[in-house]
Amino acid sequence: MAERVAMIGSGIIGRAFAICFSRGGYEVTLYDPTDGVAEKAIPLMRETVADLEQNGLLNGRTTDDVMSRMIPVKTMEEAVEGAIHVQENAPEVLELKRELFATLDKIAPKDAVLASSSSSIVTSKFTEELEGRHRCMIVHPTNPPYVVTILELVPAPWTDPEVTQKTRERLEAMGMSPITLHKEVTGFIMNRFQSPILQEAFRLVAMGVVSPEDVDKAMSEGISQRWSFIGPLEVGDLNAPNGFKEYAEKYEAMNRNIAMEQRDLVPWAGPLLDYIDKNFRERVPMDQHKARQQWRDRRLMALAVHKKWANENIK
Amino acid sequence: MAERVAMIGSGIIGRAFAICFSRGGYEVTLYDPTDGVAEKAIPLMRETVADLEQNGLLNGRTTDDVMSRMIPVKTMEEAVEGAIHVQENAPEVLELKRELFATLDKIAPKDAVLASSSSSIVTSKFTEELEGRHRCMIVHPTNPPYVVTILELVPAPWTDPEVTQKTRERLEAMGMSPITLHKEVTGFIMNRFQSPILQEAFRLVAMGVVSPEDVDKAMSEGISQRWSFIGPLEVGDLNAPNGFKEYAEKYEAMNRNIAMEQRDLVPWAGPLLDYIDKNFRERVPMDQHKARQQWRDRRLMALAVHKKWANENIK
Repeated sequence: MAERVAMIGSGIIGRAFAICFSRGGYEVTLYDPTDGVAEKAIPLMRETVADLEQNGLLNGRTTDDVMSRMIPVKTMEEAVEGAIHVQENAPEVLELKRELFATLDKIAPKDAVLASSSSSIVTSKFTEELEGRHRCMIVHPTNPPYVVTILELVPAPWTDPEVTQKTRERLEAMGMSPITLHKEVTGFIMNRFQSPILQEAFRLVAMGVVSPEDVDKAMSEGISQRWSFIGPLEVGDLNAPNGFKEYAEKYEAMNRNIAMEQRDLVPWAGPLLDYIDKNFRERVPMDQHKARQQWRDRRLMALAVHKKWANENIK
Repeated sequence: MAERVAMIGSGIIGRAFAICFSRGGYEVTLYDPTDGVAEKAIPLMRETVADLEQNGLLNGRTTDDVMSRMIPVKTMEEAVEGAIHVQENAPEVLELKRELFATLDKIAPKDAVLASSSSSIVTSKFTEELEGRHRCMIVHPTNPPYVVTILELVPAPWTDPEVTQKTRERLEAMGMSPITLHKEVTGFIMNRFQSPILQEAFRLVAMGVVSPEDVDKAMSEGISQRWSFIGPLEVGDLNAPNGFKEYAEKYEAMNRNIAMEQRDLVPWAGPLLDYIDKNFRERVPMDQHKARQQWRDRRLMALAVHKKWANENIK
């Protein structure tokens, strides 16, 4: 019989995580404090799961199989009963997370992992006083995780490293790509990578160096191409005949010069912000915004299909 | 009859650019100051072009067609004769570029564009005193440009905007993705995007937050997925129901906090550098480094094929 994972909250992130776990072979109980939301999640998820099946992104399973392991329940107690992993997907409100974790720590099986999808409040802020604080951590997805497989594991200082390691292995076995943060930092890794790129994009437009369109093109047709399958450190390693050290030594001076020019922040406000926003509405009028989001999601799914194929076929 | 483009220098970049121009329908003359290098470029390019044909990346042309328009020549005068565009691919040495451009300005047709592949020396440093300085600019590729199509056009303050615009249109018609910098800045755009990511990667490892492997995974399985087809500004626009302005206002505070933590630079040296370098050699021993580079190039080509397909089929 399949092991059970409890999904606390059946909104966008809860549903997406439920798909990841069921696709990974787990039974998933769905709980939401708003009456009817967990039940309504079923048809919404079926649509996504069918899409994934059609794209070969269900780890060889069928839609019926994945959906058959989804169980909407009425109470948190039912949800966590017999669960080995509990994933909390509540709004980003500290007091709410603190209460939820206090409850979960009381009602969940003693050896269940208690994970939060928190995107900015770190684990130590809402778990310190819990008896089971050693089994609490953040497992932060990038939306939607059934396509973008990275998961940031952020334990608190008191989280048992074995629990973190076992959770990492469980997620890896599901086809996800967990990384482990050994310290709590502002923004975790995703936002710490995204932030300086956004700062620089604002700066380049503010300086009059390039148009917003060309800033975006520089990324989408240029610098991101290698990053979509190897990270920034390995890009450097492979760009020098003698490896990383040679690369770092050769380019440190230029990078330091650039960094010094990037220290002053450009405010994201006023005429600059109006200008960029207006530019977007000229390119994608508001009544086409949702269609563009859907296009983005289709592109993300197609990219995932490509990467899966490339990982298997290009050695 | 095909218009002619002159390639000055037949090294890695010169050969790659020659492929782009011939694939775009131009006749390409190849000159290199070292005897025999231009001739030897032919079989090297044929191999690459055949690879591109096999992957459907020749704009519908054949290898024979593309190679038939490649003409090695013995002198710079022959190379530029009748050329509409001259692309200089000499080493990154200011005095050398200054001399070359002085010569090219004298011997090339008066209306030919004089472009440099310079990656760090800006146009104004080696063209100010030329009679034809209005037609000089940098056209900087990201290697290899027949796969990564971005080209950074960096005019000097005295470059005729019409020449820049016409060059941009010519490159677009060849299937390239030119962007125009309106001011000369350190590192152009590619390096200004890459640099803060590298700084942050060093910082995260130095702080003991994550391993070098996980830093790379955060990028390659996470934050880069959207960037591989939409830029950082549009990622923000699509992540807010009401568009870019809402996104910027909502997330400015977090991004400012992160930026303040990213101001101090970590030196790329000492035990930290040794540690990262050693980590790479454990993952990819030096005798497999070249094979890994070749794998990277196959992945880049496969990604270009995927993007071409997605651009045509996902609306």
